[in-house]
Amino acid sequence: MSALKVVLISPRNPLNIGAAARAMSNFGFSEMRLVNPYTVAFREARSAVKAHAVLEQAREYLTVAEAVADCALVVGTTASGPRVLEHPLRRLEYGGKLIAKKMGDAPVALLFGSEKFGLSNEDMSHCHWLMRIPTREEHGSMNLGQAVAVCLYEVIRSPASAKTAPDTKRPAEVVHTERITEFLETILDRSGYVHARVEGSTRMKIRRLVRRLRLNAHDAEVWLGMLRQISWKLEHPE
Amino acid sequence: MSALKVVLISPRNPLNIGAAARAMSNFGFSEMRLVNPYTVAFREARSAVKAHAVLEQAREYLTVAEAVADCALVVGTTASGPRVLEHPLRRLEYGGKLIAKKMGDAPVALLFGSEKFGLSNEDMSHCHWLMRIPTREEHGSMNLGQAVAVCLYEVIRSPASAKTAPDTKRPAEVVHTERITEFLETILDRSGYVHARVEGSTRMKIRRLVRRLRLNAHDAEVWLGMLRQISWKLEHPE
Repeated sequence: MSALKVVLISPRNPLNIGAAARAMSNFGFSEMRLVNPYTVAFREARSAVKAHAVLEQAREYLTVAEAVADCALVVGTTASGPRVLEHPLRRLEYGGKLIAKKMGDAPVALLFGSEKFGLSNEDMSHCHWLMRIPTREEHGSMNLGQAVAVCLYEVIRSPASAKTAPDTKRPAEVVHTERITEFLETILDRSGYVHARVEGSTRMKIRRLVRRLRLNAHDAEVWLGMLRQISWKLEHPE
Repeated sequence: MSALKVVLISPRNPLNIGAAARAMSNFGFSEMRLVNPYTVAFREARSAVKAHAVLEQAREYLTVAEAVADCALVVGTTASGPRVLEHPLRRLEYGGKLIAKKMGDAPVALLFGSEKFGLSNEDMSHCHWLMRIPTREEHGSMNLGQAVAVCLYEVIRSPASAKTAPDTKRPAEVVHTERITEFLETILDRSGYVHARVEGSTRMKIRRLVRRLRLNAHDAEVWLGMLRQISWKLEHPE
């Protein structure tokens, strides 16, 4: 993960530098580089407690060229759409995957412009291509810390996890579902809910109702305990 | 997009409320709900300029139950892993897709806990399932505004865009690539780079070299212009 260098260009707000570092730490990236940061902001960000390790190691550069000198791929982030004509423009969903792939072979730099102006044309001229976070056209510009978080999330995002259903709990065994159905029937019968006339169809309805709950093994036991107690109480009123 | 309600529970920092609103605006969501916010924070966030529309419409509730009353699905976000045993836990990659799908049918609430404590057990008891952003185990807890940004990005993320190659520029026509090759040859010849002895193989090397540039139509023209000029200058020194 140290193959990805997060390069902030002329950041001015210590909270944004801190937030970028925190997102890096959250997603497992360690190498932050700052080009020409507002000195006070960098100092203040460093004194923040969170993501201390990332900020401790962050290095300062005077120019973009120096900050990306050892990288084999340089990608700029931008809020703007097809207006940027001089560079190939890739959506984050696609670009993030490319970055993840390239990182395996060689260092990659991911550039973020200043809060106010984004990347300049001069900054962009150092980039192989640009990447766009799919924000609304009417409000494209993201907060710096949030933009870093979203881009890094896409880089570590696991496509496999999107397809795999999550671990679910062990489902209740049929014997337990059936006992729940029986208790519920008994209880409803004693409560006067089930009329003799429609008894058969009600029983089936209840059975289907209970199956649709798709109880897991643990919850089935809890329900059984509750129904057993209610059933007992109905038989022993007093 | 108004089907997704972003519910912040007891937020205390106006910057976080503002950042959450900004991410909502970036990704096209409009309905923010605040449960029991720190009043000063909410007031200060409202006075922020960015994402004004979202904050203007934001509504306050006293309890989680009231805030999610009209929703058909309630999802809580959490930094913790498999420790939360009472609820199905889904990774963001998978959960985000489920939310996007459900939003089509009925309102969905996405809950974010307070900056300091996250969601309480009481808050979680209102949730159908929990969603985890895949952060590192050693530093799982995200900044509130960044967590909102990453979750909303996953909800609007387009799987198709991840697979489709981006629009690339129209590639240079072969006739232009060939002219570039010719000019380059002539120039190198005049510069004394090509030795008569190895002329043939050098010519082929240059042809392959130029093709590997994979120039687009626009850039090919620029290169042609530059090479034409250099070639002219070499023929007319002084």
